[in-house]
Amino acid sequence: MATLGFIEYADALPEVRAVYDDIMATRQTDYINNFWKAIAHDPATLKRTWESVKQIMAPGALDPLIKEMVYLAISSSNGCGYCIASHTAAARKAGMSDTQFAELMAVVGMANETNRLVSGYQVEIDDRFKV
Amino acid sequence: MATLGFIEYADALPEVRAVYDDIMATRQTDYINNFWKAIAHDPATLKRTWESVKQIMAPGALDPLIKEMVYLAISSSNGCGYCIASHTAAARKAGMSDTQFAELMAVVGMANETNRLVSGYQVEIDDRFKV
Amino acid sequence: MATLGFIEYADALPEVRAVYDDIMATRQTDYINNFWKAIAHDPATLKRTWESVKQIMAPGALDPLIKEMVYLAISSSNGCGYCIASHTAAARKAGMSDTQFAELMAVVGMANETNRLVSGYQVEIDDRFKV
Amino acid sequence: MATLGFIEYADALPEVRAVYDDIMATRQTDYINNFWKAIAHDPATLKRTWESVKQIMAPGALDPLIKEMVYLAISSSNGCGYCIASHTAAARKAGMSDTQFAELMAVVGMANETNRLVSGYQVEIDDRFKV
Amino acid sequence: MATLGFIEYADALPEVRAVYDDIMATRQTDYINNFWKAIAHDPATLKRTWESVKQIMAPGALDPLIKEMVYLAISSSNGCGYCIASHTAAARKAGMSDTQFAELMAVVGMANETNRLVSGYQVEIDDRFKV
Amino acid sequence: MATLGFIEYADALPEVRAVYDDIMATRQTDYINNFWKAIAHDPATLKRTWESVKQIMAPGALDPLIKEMVYLAISSSNGCGYCIASHTAAARKAGMSDTQFAELMAVVGMANETNRLVSGYQVEIDDRFKV
Repeated sequence: MATLGFIEYADALPEVRAVYDDIMATRQTDYINNFWKAIAHDPATLKRTWESVKQIMAPGALDPLIKEMVYLAISSSNGCGYCIASHTAAARKAGMSDTQFAELMAVVGMANETNRLVSGYQVEIDDRFKV
Repeated sequence: MATLGFIEYADALPEVRAVYDDIMATRQTDYINNFWKAIAHDPATLKRTWESVKQIMAPGALDPLIKEMVYLAISSSNGCGYCIASHTAAARKAGMSDTQFAELMAVVGMANETNRLVSGYQVEIDDRFKV
Repeated sequence: MATLGFIEYADALPEVRAVYDDIMATRQTDYINNFWKAIAHDPATLKRTWESVKQIMAPGALDPLIKEMVYLAISSSNGCGYCIASHTAAARKAGMSDTQFAELMAVVGMANETNRLVSGYQVEIDDRFKV
Repeated sequence: MATLGFIEYADALPEVRAVYDDIMATRQTDYINNFWKAIAHDPATLKRTWESVKQIMAPGALDPLIKEMVYLAISSSNGCGYCIASHTAAARKAGMSDTQFAELMAVVGMANETNRLVSGYQVEIDDRFKV
Repeated sequence: MATLGFIEYADALPEVRAVYDDIMATRQTDYINNFWKAIAHDPATLKRTWESVKQIMAPGALDPLIKEMVYLAISSSNGCGYCIASHTAAARKAGMSDTQFAELMAVVGMANETNRLVSGYQVEIDDRFKV
Repeated sequence: MATLGFIEYADALPEVRAVYDDIMATRQTDYINNFWKAIAHDPATLKRTWESVKQIMAPGALDPLIKEMVYLAISSSNGCGYCIASHTAAARKAGMSDTQFAELMAVVGMANETNRLVSGYQVEIDDRFKV
């Protein structure tokens, strides 16, 4: 389950239901995934986290598919099993193909490799890259 | 500098020069950045790393700008100063606007936040997300 | 199980039993959790680790509840499933309420978010914060 | 400096000034630190991040000193230089003594050590710790 | 299973079979482990990753046992469950004893501890260690 | 400098001097590096950390050079600048050649790459690797 268990819609406080309603309306689904039900024990965190995610993941200068893929990339790099599973689903729903997934993972792997080569070799920043 | 110092073109072995030449030709520049000059002490690693980067970052199902932005996202998440500086430059060269950069960072920050909420709350994977 | 399996009290060497005895006496329990039984194959590591934990987690300028919550915070940030489970139990035993847990997680999440915004935006340290 | 540079109060848009004003009022200072000036290029992220920090770090079931120390603990664990410097200052302002700092670091170090022993030894979660 | 499932030898494309054949010949086994079958959906990544691993893990200035132990050390530090399990097996096959495993883990744990003490205490690099 | 500054031998308490003396005797040097001088403000942590390092890094089933290289590998993977600098020096003093360094870094980079491919592809552990 989860440390504090899950809060189902039927058992939720009005302020939690309001967030659940907005999640379902925004995502055009009748499903609330476990993450939200786990943090709903803290209504302030639930509301703040959802509103942040909603704002950040909306279409902007980057389209939602790209944002979902970046989210999946970070989650893969951090090794967060739940996050990888849920954002793989979300990215696919947003249109990610298997080939795009594979290319994304190749970049994630490569970046993690060269990040460590740079650290280990103590590479100094080129003057032209300094801000 | 770097642990083993930098190898300049003039001092490089033929197999190192061949990689430097390919980097400059592929990137249409006459500049070799410090990373390559630092790892050139190990020609096998230099060649392997460059060929991997070249293959992975080429246009495919994801375009090069997106790939550079994912590279920057991972480097930011890992806190690799050199990598952030060099891939910010590379992403800008590939067309990243300041607004795209800011949206990218917002996703990176958010993913790192929710990854830890998920771990700390011990959220179980929804059946529908399981592979 | 664990890479080397678990060493039960009945099968333990005298120096391992001595550590087990001290864990049970210090914690006022008759239960040895899996972590200690897994590393008991290396009596030097068992003894050193237990003595360090015992010293560090004792009451001092910070009380044991705060120390357990920091331990849980770090474990959540690192995504160590076993550590999160065991230190959630320990923090609760030391008096952590559900509300304290939720506030702790909110700080852990936020710190992980802003840590990456800082890295990605390459923010320079303010002179007044330099040591 | 920072990737996009710093936005000073005199040059800020009204919505950025409003956040700066709230930071100064809340913290009872006339100083805006570099982090906020670096992310002010994205007013939505500035506002969202500040409001989240303000909500999370306010007194609650945990007092502000403890929250600042947890923030510092996570930043130390992540190796974020800017965050360590700024939150050391913030924790001290909230009352952290040198002895509390030293005990905090001891817990951070120990947790990072045992987190890896647990992973490497592949320790299975005790039934009594499962949620 | 895995995000894209596993590709078995019987169902594999010729270029995938060629890599599988080389893995089995190099490792003198008739077993292909899940990692390779999971990434085989992207033949370019499969081929590149295998050739890199083969080159890097071959005998050189460091012998293969040491290399496998370093691989296991990094995987333990990163908390990658699959990697820990598979590289524990590989290191044992290369000759790692239980005592060597235990000493390796002690170093991994200690390094993770002092890495954070260094960060948290903001220790400046000694002049004599600068490159 | 460091958060609490450095404690020089001349200004040290007797229990700190005793540790400094043992470091110098064990390492056959008259130099105390900054790490120890930074944590000496907390004599208990200084003593505990030094005794742990001394025990762990001593010759055993793994020789000191291998242990220093593993320490450097972890520090590079974690991106700890101070630790990389100081353990590069220590590993060289213990006999690490430039070629061994380069091979070590290649393994560190590769492990970090495949750790993320494994996570991102959600690869299930092979039955034969389970403990």
